[in-house]
Amino acid sequence: MTTIEEKFKKLGTDNAPGQEVRQRVDGPAASTAGAVIPGTPVDFSHGDVNESAFAPTPGSLDAFVHGFEQGGAQAYTEYRGHAEIRERVAGHLAEFTGAAVSADDQLIVTPGTQGALFLAIGATIVPGDKVAIVTPDYFANRKLVEFIGAQVVPIPMDYLGSRDKAGLDLGQLETAFKQGVKTFLFSNPNNPAGVIYAKQEIDAIADLANRYGVTVIVDQLYSRLLYPGREYTHLRATHIDPRQVVTIMGPSKTESLSGFRLGVAFGAEHLIDRMEKLQAIVSLRAPGYCQAVLRTWFEEPEGWMTDRIRKHQAIRDDLLSLLTDARGIEVRTPEAGSYIFPRLPKMRLDLAQFVRTLRLQAGVTVTPGTEFSKDATDSIRLNFSQNHEAAVDAIRRTIQIVERHRMD
Amino acid sequence: MTTIEEKFKKLGTDNAPGQEVRQRVDGPAASTAGAVIPGTPVDFSHGDVNESAFAPTPGSLDAFVHGFEQGGAQAYTEYRGHAEIRERVAGHLAEFTGAAVSADDQLIVTPGTQGALFLAIGATIVPGDKVAIVTPDYFANRKLVEFIGAQVVPIPMDYLGSRDKAGLDLGQLETAFKQGVKTFLFSNPNNPAGVIYAKQEIDAIADLANRYGVTVIVDQLYSRLLYPGREYTHLRATHIDPRQVVTIMGPSKTESLSGFRLGVAFGAEHLIDRMEKLQAIVSLRAPGYCQAVLRTWFEEPEGWMTDRIRKHQAIRDDLLSLLTDARGIEVRTPEAGSYIFPRLPKMRLDLAQFVRTLRLQAGVTVTPGTEFSKDATDSIRLNFSQNHEAAVDAIRRTIQIVERHRMD
Repeated sequence: MTTIEEKFKKLGTDNAPGQEVRQRVDGPAASTAGAVIPGTPVDFSHGDVNESAFAPTPGSLDAFVHGFEQGGAQAYTEYRGHAEIRERVAGHLAEFTGAAVSADDQLIVTPGTQGALFLAIGATIVPGDKVAIVTPDYFANRKLVEFIGAQVVPIPMDYLGSRDKAGLDLGQLETAFKQGVKTFLFSNPNNPAGVIYAKQEIDAIADLANRYGVTVIVDQLYSRLLYPGREYTHLRATHIDPRQVVTIMGPSKTESLSGFRLGVAFGAEHLIDRMEKLQAIVSLRAPGYCQAVLRTWFEEPEGWMTDRIRKHQAIRDDLLSLLTDARGIEVRTPEAGSYIFPRLPKMRLDLAQFVRTLRLQAGVTVTPGTEFSKDATDSIRLNFSQNHEAAVDAIRRTIQIVERHRMD
Repeated sequence: MTTIEEKFKKLGTDNAPGQEVRQRVDGPAASTAGAVIPGTPVDFSHGDVNESAFAPTPGSLDAFVHGFEQGGAQAYTEYRGHAEIRERVAGHLAEFTGAAVSADDQLIVTPGTQGALFLAIGATIVPGDKVAIVTPDYFANRKLVEFIGAQVVPIPMDYLGSRDKAGLDLGQLETAFKQGVKTFLFSNPNNPAGVIYAKQEIDAIADLANRYGVTVIVDQLYSRLLYPGREYTHLRATHIDPRQVVTIMGPSKTESLSGFRLGVAFGAEHLIDRMEKLQAIVSLRAPGYCQAVLRTWFEEPEGWMTDRIRKHQAIRDDLLSLLTDARGIEVRTPEAGSYIFPRLPKMRLDLAQFVRTLRLQAGVTVTPGTEFSKDATDSIRLNFSQNHEAAVDAIRRTIQIVERHRMD
């Protein structure tokens, strides 16, 4: 039997995005070679929701205040969320994903997409189960599975060696399913690599899920922020058995509404039902007044989303141009979202030392690749939803630090 | 091995407070004997936070808006909560409970006290552990323990047969500790009975915890709303080993701030540390902008709390006078908080039928006692944080429905 100490050893958060402030003074030593490089500090561990970068959707605060003014009806919703708001959101999600969503039975509002992920995993697996997880993928996926006491079966994705597809190893996925994996959890667009799964990959996942009776939890948090040139396929709109798929989204990233802690999960009725039961003991409900902000979701002002995508694309392109010009940095162009996941050249510092040096000497905070895959010891994740100018300058400083410490 | 279906069978929420709207049409049959009794509907399953009853603390919405205007610094806090807000709250909690609280290491902000309870339990027990739970006590306590796969050891509390103490069976508590219980979870003031543990009871719990090395999680959600005549003892300020106690509070009830989903847990550093790691995968953090509302906590306008207590006491006294005058209803005077837990006479309806009949024929929603103790088949819980007049009239209707269906 695993002790509680062993269980929590696997849940380290010191390198998790935004937790740098809690790093112990006895952490990895930073290099002090070379001078500090001045510049506006940039925290690439998450998006910047300030006015100078990407502020929350217009009208979101008003929607909150309106919710507050509704009093008890908005403070105390059903655990799965306010009925009329669910109705409204279900309509948008059905249209967006191309498959029906019942507001009554197939949708739950959660405290952020993190809440939705936890509830979906908690509603699907028990200790001892095997769960397929893509490497690299969102850092909490592995931890969620381990916390429940289930076993992670890693499925590699060759994002750097692929074009026009994510690069998932479908052969290994089928082998895992054959060997007893009954749950598959992945993000599309992929976090951290920013790549989109091709229609053939999504269709193949649906085929395999149907054939082996696997439940698929797909985190589509960034599926609204797509750059031109790639088609996006919603798993739930394929021929997958609808009882075997739960889709997770939320207005936190693209819409810069993270501060309200809102997410949704929609799909298989029996799983949504369990998720509500679990939510009742974990957090009761998504914050009541905040739920009212969902009234602005998919109802942004005309042109607002187009403009937001255009601005993100402009930053992406400037950062990419700097990174691909730098010697020995490999990077694939993100096709969606605001993450970029460059692979760095061999350095005289290990990844933890590099990340710390970068923060202390160049004021640039990034998330080490090892949060997303234990093999990604040479990669860093950057969220480029930032002030454009500051981000470009911070990447210049990052490249300077790499140059200082590279091996050849 | 427990299957996921078995696990969720124990987590039913149909009778949980506020979930009545989801009850299946094939639920328990309501009696249609007698006419519908007209009156303002009252939902006693939770407090009424509307202007006509108990509105949120003055300034709470302003504090939220101010937090929103802070942008990223308030949206993306450390997982354990905004550092400066923790500093402020830790000071108030130290003064309130009479023992020091380190803002850095001994305090975490959570999504509601429900979130704090889940994290505290998740940070303390593993499957197979034994956990002592008081009967009756808050309905989620048992479910939390069962969800983790641990075993509930019930400890009875004779609240109706006791005066000047809660009535906990300390002998049974010691037996449980002797037999391997390593975690004890209880609420003080007790939810649902509204009674306060005597100093001797709290001292005895501290003694036993020290002697048997038991971790105690104490939910003090209602400890600010005390009626005159009883002294309140904070467990953490006794001689209990500080590494063995976590205290849970929050501004959701007394302060009517439930719609913001805020709670705090404070105490044993290693447990707070684990709770943060768990929060990172369950909900990341308490809603960022909402955390700013904690700036109003323990900083309410002069006289506001006194007035709030006085108003609750006036409602309590009016309801009690009606209930004690009714034939066959037993009730103990709540000493704190806004719950009252009357025991009803024998009726021709079972509890589920009675609760449903009361709702459909009298517009009165209450929570069945069985949510709090499987033996409480003759009790109902009422949250009297309501509009005074409407609550009094709803209790009159409740007594009429009891009269209609009583056995003798």
